[in-house]
Amino acid sequence: MSNIVIIGTGNVSHHFCKAILKSKKLELIQLFGRKKILPENFNQKISYTNNLKKIKQANFYIICVNDDAILKISNKLKVKNAIVLHTSGSSNMKLLSKHKNYGVIYPLQTFSKNKEVLFNNIPIIIEASSKIILNKIKKVSLQLSNKILECNSNQRTLIHISAVFTNNFSNYMNIISEEILLSQDIDPEILKPLIEETSDKLNYLSAKESQTGPAIRNDQITIEKHLNLLKETKYYEIYNNLSEKIKKLKNEL
Amino acid sequence: MSNIVIIGTGNVSHHFCKAILKSKKLELIQLFGRKKILPENFNQKISYTNNLKKIKQANFYIICVNDDAILKISNKLKVKNAIVLHTSGSSNMKLLSKHKNYGVIYPLQTFSKNKEVLFNNIPIIIEASSKIILNKIKKVSLQLSNKILECNSNQRTLIHISAVFTNNFSNYMNIISEEILLSQDIDPEILKPLIEETSDKLNYLSAKESQTGPAIRNDQITIEKHLNLLKETKYYEIYNNLSEKIKKLKNEL
Repeated sequence: MSNIVIIGTGNVSHHFCKAILKSKKLELIQLFGRKKILPENFNQKISYTNNLKKIKQANFYIICVNDDAILKISNKLKVKNAIVLHTSGSSNMKLLSKHKNYGVIYPLQTFSKNKEVLFNNIPIIIEASSKIILNKIKKVSLQLSNKILECNSNQRTLIHISAVFTNNFSNYMNIISEEILLSQDIDPEILKPLIEETSDKLNYLSAKESQTGPAIRNDQITIEKHLNLLKETKYYEIYNNLSEKIKKLKNEL
Repeated sequence: MSNIVIIGTGNVSHHFCKAILKSKKLELIQLFGRKKILPENFNQKISYTNNLKKIKQANFYIICVNDDAILKISNKLKVKNAIVLHTSGSSNMKLLSKHKNYGVIYPLQTFSKNKEVLFNNIPIIIEASSKIILNKIKKVSLQLSNKILECNSNQRTLIHISAVFTNNFSNYMNIISEEILLSQDIDPEILKPLIEETSDKLNYLSAKESQTGPAIRNDQITIEKHLNLLKETKYYEIYNNLSEKIKKLKNEL
C-alpha cells in the first residue's frame, strides 16, 4: 500500500483524490491546501491541513498547483525518502530537483469541477529522476489508469501543446459557435450531433481525412459569404486566418 | 409515398440516399450525376442516369451539389409541380426561384464517404417558397430525422458559419495536434480520451464553462514556453492569436 499526500485543492487535485480513494492499493493520507477548510467538492472524510508543518510523512507527494507555484511549494516541502511529483504538462521535472527522488505524473485530460471523468481511461505521462523511481511511479500510475506513457520533459510539453490545440482551442471554437447562435436566439443544442460526430469520426478516419467544409474544398464563394457576414465581429480574423491555413492544407493532402 | 430524385453523387448525396432508402414512406426513384456509372459507394440497386433528358418526374428533387453548381443544375432542371430543394448551408433559397415550388433541406452534419452517421439524429434546417410547401418539406424531413428547424436564409448561413467553427476549425485543431505528436513519433491515439471529453463535457457545461488551459488561466509562463517551442513552425501564429482571444474571454466570464 502506497501512502500519498496531495498538495493543492484545484480541479486536478479533486480528480486525483477521487481516483486515489477508489483505488484499493493506494491510500490518500492527507490533503494540503491554502484554504482554511477542505473545499466542499472534496470527499469530506479526507484528512486536510493548511499548515505546512503538519504535513505527514508519506511515500508520494503529488503537487497539483499552478505551474508558477510548483517551485515554491516544492522548496517548502520537507520529506525524507519520499518521491515528490508534479502533475504539470509543461513544467520541467528539474523544478523538484532539491528532493532526492522526484518525477512527473501528468494526466492528459481537461478537468472541470462539476464534470466527472473516467480516470482509468486517461493517459498518464510519467517521468522520473531515475529508473528505480520511474518504476515506482509506474506502479502507482497503473493503479489509476490503464494507459501509461514515459516521456522526457520536452516531449511532455509537446504533448501538452497538442492538448491545448485539441481541447482548449477546439472548445474555443465551440464558444464562438454558441455565441453566434445565441445572437440569433437559436438553441446551441442543435450543434450537439455535429460536435459528437467531429469526435466520433476520429475513431474511423485521421483528422486530415475528416476535414470537410468550405476551406478544404477551396469554396471561395462560401468563404466570402461567411466573411461578409462576420465583418466587424471579433470572429472575422479567426475565420479568415484558419480558412487560409486549411486551404494550404488541401495542397498537402 | 413521396417520390424523390437526388441530384449529385458526393458525400451529402450518399448520406441522403441511404436515409431515404431506409425510410418506408419515401421512395428514391432516381439518382442523377455527371459520372458515367453509379459510384461504388452507393447502393447499386439505385436507378442512375447521367443524362439530364432522362430525369424522371418526381414529387421532390433534392440537389446535393457544390454551392457554385446549384444555379446551373437548377436552371437545366425541367419539372412540373414538383418541389425543388437544395441542401446547402449558405446558398440563398432564391437560387431555385425559377421553379414554382422550391426550398431548402440542409442537414447540419459533417459527411465523409467512409464514415456512417445516424441520419435521424441530424438536425435538418428547412426553408420554403410558401407555407404550403414548407409543410410538405417538413413531412419529408420528419421521415429522415427527429429534429427539424425552420429558418430563413440568413439564419441558415449563420448556423452554417457556427458549424464551420465547431466542426471544420475544431477538426483543424486536431490535425495540428496529430502533426505535432507524429513529429515526435508519439501515437496521436493518446489524445482520444481528451477529444471525447471535449465533446462529452458539453452535455454538462456550456462551452464557456468548459474552457480550461493556460490561456483562460492567463498563465503567461506556460504560454511563452509553448510559443518558444512553436517558433518557426506554422502553428506559432495560430497559438498566439487564439490564446490572445481566450485571454480576453476571461474578462467576460
